[in-house]
Amino acid sequence: MNVLLTGIDGYVGWPTALHLSRRFPDVRIIGVDHFGRRRWVEACGSVSAVPIASMADRLEAARTYGYGNISFVEGDLVDRRFVDEVIGVYKPKVILHLAAQPSAPYSEINGERASYTQYNNQQATRNLLWSVYEQGLAREIHFIETTTTGVYGAPQFEIPEGFFEVEHKGERDRIPFPGMARSWYHMSKCNDINNLFLANQQWGITITDLRTAIVYGTETGETAQDERLATRFDFDYYFGVVLNRFCAMAVAGYPITVYGKGGQAKPYISLEDCVQSQANAIEREKLTGKYEVYNQVTGLESIRGLSLKIQREAKKQLGVDVEIQHVSNPRVEKEDHLMRIDNRKFLEVLGAPRCLIDDGIGQILNTLQHYRDTLLSYRDRFMT
Amino acid sequence: MNVLLTGIDGYVGWPTALHLSRRFPDVRIIGVDHFGRRRWVEACGSVSAVPIASMADRLEAARTYGYGNISFVEGDLVDRRFVDEVIGVYKPKVILHLAAQPSAPYSEINGERASYTQYNNQQATRNLLWSVYEQGLAREIHFIETTTTGVYGAPQFEIPEGFFEVEHKGERDRIPFPGMARSWYHMSKCNDINNLFLANQQWGITITDLRTAIVYGTETGETAQDERLATRFDFDYYFGVVLNRFCAMAVAGYPITVYGKGGQAKPYISLEDCVQSQANAIEREKLTGKYEVYNQVTGLESIRGLSLKIQREAKKQLGVDVEIQHVSNPRVEKEDHLMRIDNRKFLEVLGAPRCLIDDGIGQILNTLQHYRDTLLSYRDRFMT
Repeated sequence: MNVLLTGIDGYVGWPTALHLSRRFPDVRIIGVDHFGRRRWVEACGSVSAVPIASMADRLEAARTYGYGNISFVEGDLVDRRFVDEVIGVYKPKVILHLAAQPSAPYSEINGERASYTQYNNQQATRNLLWSVYEQGLAREIHFIETTTTGVYGAPQFEIPEGFFEVEHKGERDRIPFPGMARSWYHMSKCNDINNLFLANQQWGITITDLRTAIVYGTETGETAQDERLATRFDFDYYFGVVLNRFCAMAVAGYPITVYGKGGQAKPYISLEDCVQSQANAIEREKLTGKYEVYNQVTGLESIRGLSLKIQREAKKQLGVDVEIQHVSNPRVEKEDHLMRIDNRKFLEVLGAPRCLIDDGIGQILNTLQHYRDTLLSYRDRFMT
Repeated sequence: MNVLLTGIDGYVGWPTALHLSRRFPDVRIIGVDHFGRRRWVEACGSVSAVPIASMADRLEAARTYGYGNISFVEGDLVDRRFVDEVIGVYKPKVILHLAAQPSAPYSEINGERASYTQYNNQQATRNLLWSVYEQGLAREIHFIETTTTGVYGAPQFEIPEGFFEVEHKGERDRIPFPGMARSWYHMSKCNDINNLFLANQQWGITITDLRTAIVYGTETGETAQDERLATRFDFDYYFGVVLNRFCAMAVAGYPITVYGKGGQAKPYISLEDCVQSQANAIEREKLTGKYEVYNQVTGLESIRGLSLKIQREAKKQLGVDVEIQHVSNPRVEKEDHLMRIDNRKFLEVLGAPRCLIDDGIGQILNTLQHYRDTLLSYRDRFMT
């Protein structure tokens, strides 16, 4: 059996490849990427804090450690001919679609980057779906996409897992949760979700939509085995997600900059748990013809609460005093929104989380200590 | 004051230009188009039943009849530089965005056409929104887009006007109606709606979203004045909407082909009322910074009911017996869905409808009589 893994070179993609390789030794993992993430981060003047090897070196190291069932094909999913070729040649039973331009601030730089982000993300998804359908494989493939919890916005009720039964004027129906994202990147995923829903309705393709929280961490069991197996760690304004970036600030002795009051709660999941649940989703899902949504979240924390935790851990682990600075919020968001999010279906897929926020912070701070020089020399990349 | 009218060469676009010209003599209407619709219909092997003049001839005829305040700029809205130029030079106070690839069946031909439709429609909208924002005009422009009632799908409750207050687990919030479209074209409008919502949230741009029903009719008061002022009338499988196509079938002596049982109700509005309400929307709306949705619908009718009405009118007006044939439904839809749709806000904008379905059918049948030869020679275009 073949699994097509898009975005294999990404922060989540590479650890996923290694984990799938170990977990499913009889499966061949076909990774595709066009190395967009490396270029985007470089174009923003930044770098991965944890050095990462070239794909050739990654694959060679992987083979050394027994991860021999990973193949790599370089190409751009926006090119339909490339997509047709990969799917036609490898006939995957599972497509795990992680590839995307994933940065909200990057998508907000200007109209050109906003349109690039939406076109890139949506065209890749459309090409994969249509290629599967037009090659007659719609009923034979399990299509898994990581979208984002950012599609939900900030509603005044508990966020359901994708669909919910609502009452309107005394009548009830089960409907998809509307797209309420607050950035052009996040909205690209709302638009993807619309198209996934349509493809499922039209062709009966089995879809698993993992609405992924903010992923944090520097490593997984597999990537930690060798520095050539390491995954990237972004800390800059554009590609560093909040928990990772705050930890990098603490290690660099830069004040942790909280947007506004920082009361808004955000959902999180560790890299380890994220990789794990994706493998579980591959293992569990039969070709049901359904569109299933899981909120890939293991914990919630307010931005202010997060900064305090990191301050405390930095003192404990590194013996340093970290300053917390409140800056005006560049985002349009409800700063005191108390997010509540249903993740019960998801926890059935994941089982017990392996890593929670406090442990995660400690581990990140420790790892980043080794790359303090990089963080110091790119210090100006923390803010825009 | 300038009004930018995108898609001026289209079925609704051209009558809109003439009506705006008459209604607002002090306004300059800047029409843009890239003549996509003419090419798409031609590529499908069909033609407008009512002959239409070139844009140059249309404008010349328009001037003769006193519609002197219409300018035309040829260009493609997918090209951001073109959009910047038009908005930068003319600084419109209103953008009435009608341009789109509007055919569901055309978007379903294959993946290439599906992607083309979504990219074309969404990129045009993104370019307009971002151009307005990046030229510092977000608070100075009223942005009106015609989307479609097809974004609502077939829910089990009354369809609200865009937003609705729902109850979920005992809590209430007002949320946008989710995208539940059933074609790649209709979903392009769900995705546009997501982006319109985002642009409104981020920049406070005033948006009027006219969720437009199936538009029927051959003419308006203005287009009927001269044959060079006529608007197109499509009857083929791809670009002919159901009511217009059924009338063309009746005139051509072709059986009216009802998909499935034909129990599904669809919403309608006449070309005259559609043009009227767009002008009213321009007149009424202040720069409120709000995102207002109106269900541009004046009547509902089941497909079967519609075919019976046309059969009856054809007998009465033309003295012909029209056969009704039920064919298997190529679309995935609930064939007995009883659509209920709230249009109270819309009727405040429109006032009393000028034309209802029965009168509309009679008028279409009469007009099409003159173009019976065209319908006969393109008879094979009624089905795929």
